[in-house]
Amino acid sequence: MARYQFIIAYDGTHFEGFQRQEKARTVQGEVEKALHKLNWQGKAILAAGRTDTGTHAEGQVIAFDLDWAHTPLELSRAVNANLPMDIVVKQAATARPDFHPRFEAVARCYRYRLFHALERDPLRERYAWRVQSEVEMDLLNKAAQILIGVHDFVSFGTPPRPGGSTIREVNQAKWVEEREFLQFEIRANAFLYHMVRRLVYIQVLVGQKRFSLDEFRRGVLEVHSQPPGLAPAHGLVLSDVVYPPVGMLDFDQPGK
Amino acid sequence: MARYQFIIAYDGTHFEGFQRQEKARTVQGEVEKALHKLNWQGKAILAAGRTDTGTHAEGQVIAFDLDWAHTPLELSRAVNANLPMDIVVKQAATARPDFHPRFEAVARCYRYRLFHALERDPLRERYAWRVQSEVEMDLLNKAAQILIGVHDFVSFGTPPRPGGSTIREVNQAKWVEEREFLQFEIRANAFLYHMVRRLVYIQVLVGQKRFSLDEFRRGVLEVHSQPPGLAPAHGLVLSDVVYPPVGMLDFDQPGK
Repeated sequence: MARYQFIIAYDGTHFEGFQRQEKARTVQGEVEKALHKLNWQGKAILAAGRTDTGTHAEGQVIAFDLDWAHTPLELSRAVNANLPMDIVVKQAATARPDFHPRFEAVARCYRYRLFHALERDPLRERYAWRVQSEVEMDLLNKAAQILIGVHDFVSFGTPPRPGGSTIREVNQAKWVEEREFLQFEIRANAFLYHMVRRLVYIQVLVGQKRFSLDEFRRGVLEVHSQPPGLAPAHGLVLSDVVYPPVGMLDFDQPGK
Repeated sequence: MARYQFIIAYDGTHFEGFQRQEKARTVQGEVEKALHKLNWQGKAILAAGRTDTGTHAEGQVIAFDLDWAHTPLELSRAVNANLPMDIVVKQAATARPDFHPRFEAVARCYRYRLFHALERDPLRERYAWRVQSEVEMDLLNKAAQILIGVHDFVSFGTPPRPGGSTIREVNQAKWVEEREFLQFEIRANAFLYHMVRRLVYIQVLVGQKRFSLDEFRRGVLEVHSQPPGLAPAHGLVLSDVVYPPVGMLDFDQPGK
């Protein structure tokens, strides 16, 4: 029996979020179903974080214990053969027997993509939020700059456990132009529930001049009022989970 | 009664192609269903071209006759309200009573997107073809260069009507890097059935050094053997249909 660690990607469109539920299709449920076919006997896989219904991932990290006689690479191939098309194991490795993907993560990175268009856009709306008023890149980046540092983000989400701390450290926050998309990239030690989606929503209000930079700054740094709204889940991707370099014992990438 | 002209976009994933069929979900079928709700009485809409099952469009052009008391913009909004989420009217205009979107088109533009990866990639494979061996951009562009000009493309597809000409003029053909994608962009006066997908397939063989540039050149310009294969439909987008500037009488973009 050894502990294995996977980096997985998924298209969140047809999942009711990450966390297993009795009657809904979830990422955890599908991964566990695939593992059961390899005689996995565990109760639940461990994961770096739970993504919302409709949110995508490129760098979700999971861990579990399994009796497996072959290499991690062969394990990832076997699991991929049992997974549906909208989930894939990207990387596999053995891990320390006590490795925990959530507790040991030192940072998480998300990206959020949006674009401005008046009418529906069937080829872009699966992975990006369409906003109907123009958004000024310059204002977005001024807003993002304000986020960097240690702040009490109580206005922007709830902690995983009731009563937990709402203080988080944002290491990086910026907006970049990605072809026709405006893309928000944020890295923090951890995130509150819904935090990225609320931060995107309010920054868009700033970028559309419906909310001033000063109001935004006060909202982030001082006043802790109710958050104004939530950007849709389908624009959001969990892009990376960062660990100290010692986390992995070895490292295999399928197909290499 | 006036003739109207629409530019429409669609995600081809859940359509059995453009052309109406008795029992399958098609783009034409859905558009006609939406028009029927506005008391459209025609037998069939006209279209610039028929896309394959799974192929997408950003610039398909259709035309039809309708009794409509309001502006083209209002018509496009009314149709959009009746269309499913995977089709949208992007632009609407009145047209000459005898305007035909296929016969009057002077050029069509397609783009095809692919990427190299060993394992499945759920967030990219809906709109791009994943190839498992690396492809050399330089060879792709040398191959594309060979396509430009007037050639008999009999090796690369069949004409819309049996016995029709297989000679086509390619005005533009190039590969560009689009983030992690390699994108083929081609413009020709018209295309044979399956031509773009066959051209992509064989160029990828060239880019992977499984087929030489000389063989490719002979295949295009001289020897007319059986085409080697077909790149998957889901990487292909009909991006634009080009008309002489006189085609439209006026021009409305929804939401402007």
